[in-house]
Amino acid sequence: MGTIEQNILKEVAGLDALPVGAYNIRTNGTSSARNTTANIDIVTKEDKPGIDIIIKPGTKNESVHIPVVVSQAGLKDMVYNDFFVGEGADVTIVAGCGIHNCGSADSGHDGIHTFYVEKGAKVRYIEKHYGEGDPGTTGKRLMNPTTIVHLKEDAEMIMETSQISGIDDTLRITEADLCDRAKLEIHDSIMTTGDQNADAQFTADLNGEDCACNIVSRTVARDHSKQHYTSTLNGNNRCAGHTECDSILMDQAYVLATPQLSAATTEASLIHEAAIGKIAGEQLIKLMTLGLTEEEAEEQIISGFLK
Amino acid sequence: MGTIEQNILKEVAGLDALPVGAYNIRTNGTSSARNTTANIDIVTKEDKPGIDIIIKPGTKNESVHIPVVVSQAGLKDMVYNDFFVGEGADVTIVAGCGIHNCGSADSGHDGIHTFYVEKGAKVRYIEKHYGEGDPGTTGKRLMNPTTIVHLKEDAEMIMETSQISGIDDTLRITEADLCDRAKLEIHDSIMTTGDQNADAQFTADLNGEDCACNIVSRTVARDHSKQHYTSTLNGNNRCAGHTECDSILMDQAYVLATPQLSAATTEASLIHEAAIGKIAGEQLIKLMTLGLTEEEAEEQIISGFLK
Repeated sequence: MGTIEQNILKEVAGLDALPVGAYNIRTNGTSSARNTTANIDIVTKEDKPGIDIIIKPGTKNESVHIPVVVSQAGLKDMVYNDFFVGEGADVTIVAGCGIHNCGSADSGHDGIHTFYVEKGAKVRYIEKHYGEGDPGTTGKRLMNPTTIVHLKEDAEMIMETSQISGIDDTLRITEADLCDRAKLEIHDSIMTTGDQNADAQFTADLNGEDCACNIVSRTVARDHSKQHYTSTLNGNNRCAGHTECDSILMDQAYVLATPQLSAATTEASLIHEAAIGKIAGEQLIKLMTLGLTEEEAEEQIISGFLK
Repeated sequence: MGTIEQNILKEVAGLDALPVGAYNIRTNGTSSARNTTANIDIVTKEDKPGIDIIIKPGTKNESVHIPVVVSQAGLKDMVYNDFFVGEGADVTIVAGCGIHNCGSADSGHDGIHTFYVEKGAKVRYIEKHYGEGDPGTTGKRLMNPTTIVHLKEDAEMIMETSQISGIDDTLRITEADLCDRAKLEIHDSIMTTGDQNADAQFTADLNGEDCACNIVSRTVARDHSKQHYTSTLNGNNRCAGHTECDSILMDQAYVLATPQLSAATTEASLIHEAAIGKIAGEQLIKLMTLGLTEEEAEEQIISGFLK
């Protein structure tokens, strides 16, 4: 693995060396390194590209890293990863993807991740998307992640997803269904710059009694970039749903927020909040009186906002 | 005019007798009474059904009543009313519609109201929709109001629109565009019962500098009724937009709320809030300890909420 690939691994998965625990590193469309543990198995799919990650019931405090690196210009990588999280397990899954494109052809990665989280299991899922390339590169970096989450009774999942820089075009789809007492918490951060385009779509079916879903989205749109945010909460039982989308708009960027609440039962309690605006002047002035330049103050506010 | 028609007039326009000021009463598709004043003219359109309401610049403290009564079963009435509100005028316009249907054929009224509100003019617009019929009547009562509002510089419009009972199916469309410093305030109240269906769609283009729009919608959905609420704020200049949709859901009713914020400039500040849920238990209990039955307490809460 060269310097470019190592740098991407660090950006998307925080890895300086091979991680502890189970991992599968996919580089330019093939598995370049893999480790399994007594409790976590990783099996290559036979019918299509991708892997099955099988986590035994009761597995605690273990982690799985499955970063993807695309450094070959013009490569369109597509992968189906299925996660089977056994009853009562409690694990962390880190699944970033980074693209380095220095060619004139577009590079892309489409990952379809499906989670089968069994009764009482807990998953913390971290996903970072990142792109880079030399100045003047014309090939685009494209990333279309689809995440499908099935949460059984009492299962819990926390998703921390982000795409902070370097992705020219993205369609981010997240779909979830929740059984009784299941909990889903999503924190999504997006920043777009230049002529980038980001489309994020969340749908959660709150089917189970006393299930709960909270989706918090923070986005920053700069330059001429465009963002479209859609979230749909379907309350089909006694449940609590909350979705929140706050966007900071800068330069000539454009943001469209389309949340949707659908309640089919009086026992559903659904709330949505959205706000689009620029950085508050007072915040900027406060930081500038502390000695920061206007630009530094903006960066400070943005990074705090996306955190 | 018979007792049925008089009762409807009272429901939709609060009228016991002919109103003071300008009015046009439309009964079963024809104008049954009209009055104009020195400042407000009402002219029958020649190319299509409807009237032009022409309000002279500077007209103050005058009112126009244009109630519509449909008491003939099977009548489908369609009318185009244009309101020309002169510069600096300050008027109240009351435009209700009531349908009494005791037949087996559907009765309906579609009103397309277009407002041209000139510089600095102020309009308070009140619109009530109401339906009634004898028990066992199979003919439906349909009402599709379209309201188009053009607000010139410094113009202001307050809309109080409601549909509390008796309309089986409705598509309520409101579209507005705002010039510099124009202000639009909409308070919409809807209650649906039985198998009723209500679709309310609001769109405001905030084109002018420092223009402002506030849309507040309160809805109650009971029995098997269905509601769909859509509001779109397009921030195209330095402006402030706020939209809020709160729904009380009862019985087996269904509510779908789809607000949309679209900001094309960093100077736009847009906020949306939506909440769907049932009546809070504490509120009910509080009123019941004061001696109300559960049903009375519910009615009390609903009527306060829709007010």
